[in-house]
Amino acid sequence: MNGYMDRIARVDLTSLEVTTEPLQEHTARKYLGGKGLGAYLLYHYLKPHTDPYAPDNLLIFDTGPLTGTTFPCSGRAAVITRSPMTGTFLDSYAGGSFGPMLKHAGYDVLVISGKAEKPVYILVDNGAISIREAGKLWGLATIDAERLLRNSLKEKDGARVSIATVGPAGEKLVRCANIATEGRAFGRGGAGAVMGSKNLKAVALRGSYKVAIADEAALKEVAGRARKKIAEHPMTKKGGVFPRMGTLMTTDVTQVTGTLPTRNWAENVFGRAEQINGNAFVQNKTKSHACYMCPIACSREIRTTAFGVKTVNEGPEYETVFSFGANCEIGDPAVINAADKLCEEYGMDTITCGSAVGFAMECFEKGLITTKDTGGLDLHFGNGEAVVALVHLIGKKEGIGAVLSDGVRHASTKIKGSADFAIHVKGLELPGYDPRGMKGQGLTYALSDRGACHVRSNTLRTELLAPSEKTDRYSYEGKAVMVSELQLTYVMFDVLISCAFGAFAITPEDYVDAVSATTGWSFSMKELRTLTQRTWNLTRLFNSREGFDRKDDTLPPRLFNEASTKGPSRGQVVDKKAFEKMLDEYYEAVGWDIATGIPTKKTLNELGIADW
Amino acid sequence: MNGYMDRIARVDLTSLEVTTEPLQEHTARKYLGGKGLGAYLLYHYLKPHTDPYAPDNLLIFDTGPLTGTTFPCSGRAAVITRSPMTGTFLDSYAGGSFGPMLKHAGYDVLVISGKAEKPVYILVDNGAISIREAGKLWGLATIDAERLLRNSLKEKDGARVSIATVGPAGEKLVRCANIATEGRAFGRGGAGAVMGSKNLKAVALRGSYKVAIADEAALKEVAGRARKKIAEHPMTKKGGVFPRMGTLMTTDVTQVTGTLPTRNWAENVFGRAEQINGNAFVQNKTKSHACYMCPIACSREIRTTAFGVKTVNEGPEYETVFSFGANCEIGDPAVINAADKLCEEYGMDTITCGSAVGFAMECFEKGLITTKDTGGLDLHFGNGEAVVALVHLIGKKEGIGAVLSDGVRHASTKIKGSADFAIHVKGLELPGYDPRGMKGQGLTYALSDRGACHVRSNTLRTELLAPSEKTDRYSYEGKAVMVSELQLTYVMFDVLISCAFGAFAITPEDYVDAVSATTGWSFSMKELRTLTQRTWNLTRLFNSREGFDRKDDTLPPRLFNEASTKGPSRGQVVDKKAFEKMLDEYYEAVGWDIATGIPTKKTLNELGIADW
Repeated sequence: MNGYMDRIARVDLTSLEVTTEPLQEHTARKYLGGKGLGAYLLYHYLKPHTDPYAPDNLLIFDTGPLTGTTFPCSGRAAVITRSPMTGTFLDSYAGGSFGPMLKHAGYDVLVISGKAEKPVYILVDNGAISIREAGKLWGLATIDAERLLRNSLKEKDGARVSIATVGPAGEKLVRCANIATEGRAFGRGGAGAVMGSKNLKAVALRGSYKVAIADEAALKEVAGRARKKIAEHPMTKKGGVFPRMGTLMTTDVTQVTGTLPTRNWAENVFGRAEQINGNAFVQNKTKSHACYMCPIACSREIRTTAFGVKTVNEGPEYETVFSFGANCEIGDPAVINAADKLCEEYGMDTITCGSAVGFAMECFEKGLITTKDTGGLDLHFGNGEAVVALVHLIGKKEGIGAVLSDGVRHASTKIKGSADFAIHVKGLELPGYDPRGMKGQGLTYALSDRGACHVRSNTLRTELLAPSEKTDRYSYEGKAVMVSELQLTYVMFDVLISCAFGAFAITPEDYVDAVSATTGWSFSMKELRTLTQRTWNLTRLFNSREGFDRKDDTLPPRLFNEASTKGPSRGQVVDKKAFEKMLDEYYEAVGWDIATGIPTKKTLNELGIADW
Repeated sequence: MNGYMDRIARVDLTSLEVTTEPLQEHTARKYLGGKGLGAYLLYHYLKPHTDPYAPDNLLIFDTGPLTGTTFPCSGRAAVITRSPMTGTFLDSYAGGSFGPMLKHAGYDVLVISGKAEKPVYILVDNGAISIREAGKLWGLATIDAERLLRNSLKEKDGARVSIATVGPAGEKLVRCANIATEGRAFGRGGAGAVMGSKNLKAVALRGSYKVAIADEAALKEVAGRARKKIAEHPMTKKGGVFPRMGTLMTTDVTQVTGTLPTRNWAENVFGRAEQINGNAFVQNKTKSHACYMCPIACSREIRTTAFGVKTVNEGPEYETVFSFGANCEIGDPAVINAADKLCEEYGMDTITCGSAVGFAMECFEKGLITTKDTGGLDLHFGNGEAVVALVHLIGKKEGIGAVLSDGVRHASTKIKGSADFAIHVKGLELPGYDPRGMKGQGLTYALSDRGACHVRSNTLRTELLAPSEKTDRYSYEGKAVMVSELQLTYVMFDVLISCAFGAFAITPEDYVDAVSATTGWSFSMKELRTLTQRTWNLTRLFNSREGFDRKDDTLPPRLFNEASTKGPSRGQVVDKKAFEKMLDEYYEAVGWDIATGIPTKKTLNELGIADW
């Protein structure tokens, strides 16, 4: 009744209709926000088997109960859609200020459907939603489009502007296109291509609405408590590894454990890893950047020069260092930084893009493609100039780039003999942790709802950083239950929507208290757990409806069949039988049918999502 | 595609959904705005036989193609709904700044449906629409609610605030409740009761959007031309009768022609008319007020004291002077001014309210009601204190006021023996022109789409002020065609939406040029004429659908059966046979079935509204 808080806005780009409606409390309490609420909306409002590029596909931006409040590390936003990479449920997240600004502009959720006749952008301006011509922005790099639009919208009355855009890749339906915002991205799965398919160049937010807080004092207390923990935790405190280098700390960890995918996953240690590790990049660090309400500021500006061209870049993250670095046998931070920047400008996911380059290199080295196919590019592993050139081709969807732009699954159907080393699950390329050296991560990838993913559970901490006797990384024992619990933790981050880094210091109990303070509910750990289970089951149900089942919960053949030859994990594969046993145990643990991997009626009943 | 112009906003107070959609050009070109567009929307989106107080009834505020532009006298707005007084189509208009501000706030049309759980108001703020609690405003007089809300919304960034409110009468479903704005009102037919039935206290508008003009230079030219004509025309120029006294000039005209309804229509001259004529009121005039973009400024502040109570009032208009004056045999401007002000505070139509008082006085004088019924009030004609007291009772829906609050038609079913002098058509009380002295006005009343009305055609000019040989006011000859043409002129005012006073100077050709300039169409006189016919037929079709037909196109029995005894029109009645012949001729002229009075298929086909 207070008008602006807790409202869902729907924009149909075909009819140009804009609808806003309250977010019902019973729905919010069942699905909270972010992934949960997005799954609820997508499951209910997207017709089954809708082509991801069809106007009817929904592109949902949403927030969580803590977004826009003073609670630390709560400044992220989600985008939810059906993925053109995988055909599965897709949720991607980005930091910056887009999430908080969506609330300040008047809405919790923005649901976009339809397809505009001409390029447009959506402006949400202190509650008012308009659809505006974007002809002048079309074709521009994400960064340029954002800058131009920001200048035209001028910040006023203390109301900042937040903008999310697609680049040329999204416009051209490069399948791995992402949505960029303030040097960050809603990265994986192709949400940018969905946005491009709608002729939607950008979403701009401006507003000065206050976020409603049920109990200001209680929120102040728990936010203060959380900030204190962040300030004290060795990972997140000033001078800690996250403020210093963010995700770049990971390269050393995966390298020493034999889990750093190298040479398109033929190996899992990289000879020049030290040249591209965290310290190597941090030498070129010129600034730190923080998302809204983040005391950690893990993001960093890196300045390098490759082939005479200067790059001033926000990033790269570890995943990019893996995909364009070890995976392509590139040992030069400047090349990785340049490739990362190009991906940002075209608006493309760096894991998919770097993986596609590594995959093409293996094709090239094996003679499956030649310079005739590559337009003269010498795609031997380690050729940095070729990497940069190939990113351009993928972004422009030209030549061999057009083949690769759909990701390695589709490319492998066009390049004969390459299917055995197309490294993906359900069509999404694997992030930079090799399951042959950490068996739990294999289960993580196989079961992730959006295709292979390292943030739908990640065994980095439990298998690599701080393994217990029970979690030997080469063992399969107990991994099913471990992964199922980790998944719920990641769902927690994604329904809240909260940053996983802050969670090194903040406890689930803190989050629960913060939710109670903002919503006025007596939220509980038990309720949170059920809610995360409900959400995880709902995305599974979505995928089941689209035809996915147990047979899709698998890994690329290379991980089952080919051992690496060097480093601590040499000789290791993922044992197919042991893997299938893990799957049995997992389905058993979460209450899914063992034969099909589909949630049982009993499970759905218990979670209050039956009879749909 | 420019986002804000030409948009329809829908607010459902039950679901709290807000939807905006483009106003399609083909619809705008067929129905233009105001009455036409409102009729289109009501006909299509209101289910037949919806109770006017049902949540499903629609309350539509809209504007015209010139609203918010610099074209003079274009500052009015319309409200369209199904009338609780009559059950017919209802369109009412008000000046001030509400119409232009609706456009500046981002919309051409605001369609309200549903019923709020608790009292609310709607805020349209630079495109953003919110539904807000109005508990603190509930129960307040219109003027106080407007002031309080205006203060709470503070004008900012040069964006003015416009507010329309209901008073206690609308809240209590007093059937003749109106909607007040800036001392003006959407007056007749009970739109305020519909608003009250929705628990909607107010609509507030704020914004600084520019109104889109296709050809600025062309508009400047025609607006300048129109302003020049207004400045030169004897009625509208500085010192002219409209700037001096507005509608109050009429009292002298109706008095000298024997058309001033007196003593509840028993007579049509009033012995003390001179005491309440224009000059009498203007002696107490302290200020002039103009609507948005009006060079005439016909509205005036009148200060009087009655029974020791000071009244500072915007008004009254002639209709109020008739209804509370001659009709109740009140010869004191201060009493009329006080009654007018009370009607504004409670939020009630003054024609219906004054007519109900006059009707009650006749009941009282005839002994049909006594002081037992009136709570002690002596309701003899001419008792000013009783008039004021009775307005309070009607506004509060207390005692005899509750009976009268539904209007004379409903009251006459409760007071035995009063039906013969309940002066209404289709449930709406007659304005202050007696058809016995101007036969064409009788046809006007009988055929008006919202019940008896003097602004759905008015023969004041053609029968009283400037009669030709062909338009003898006591004759029935040629009146059918005359009225049918006048109706189209009034539809023109109401689709534009333009003030009828400016039209004394501005020509239809000027309006057509102004529409072309604002819309970019090559609008023509022929197109305008067809459009007004289409609109008039559509409201007729709406009423037909609700069960109205020829039998309802009639006049109160008194006008057929009782002649007045004094003045120029003494001895005159409306001859029933001659009246029915006029009706035949009228139906024939406009292409309606003579037996039923329903538009023929042929007519609907010609106007492009068949097959609905």
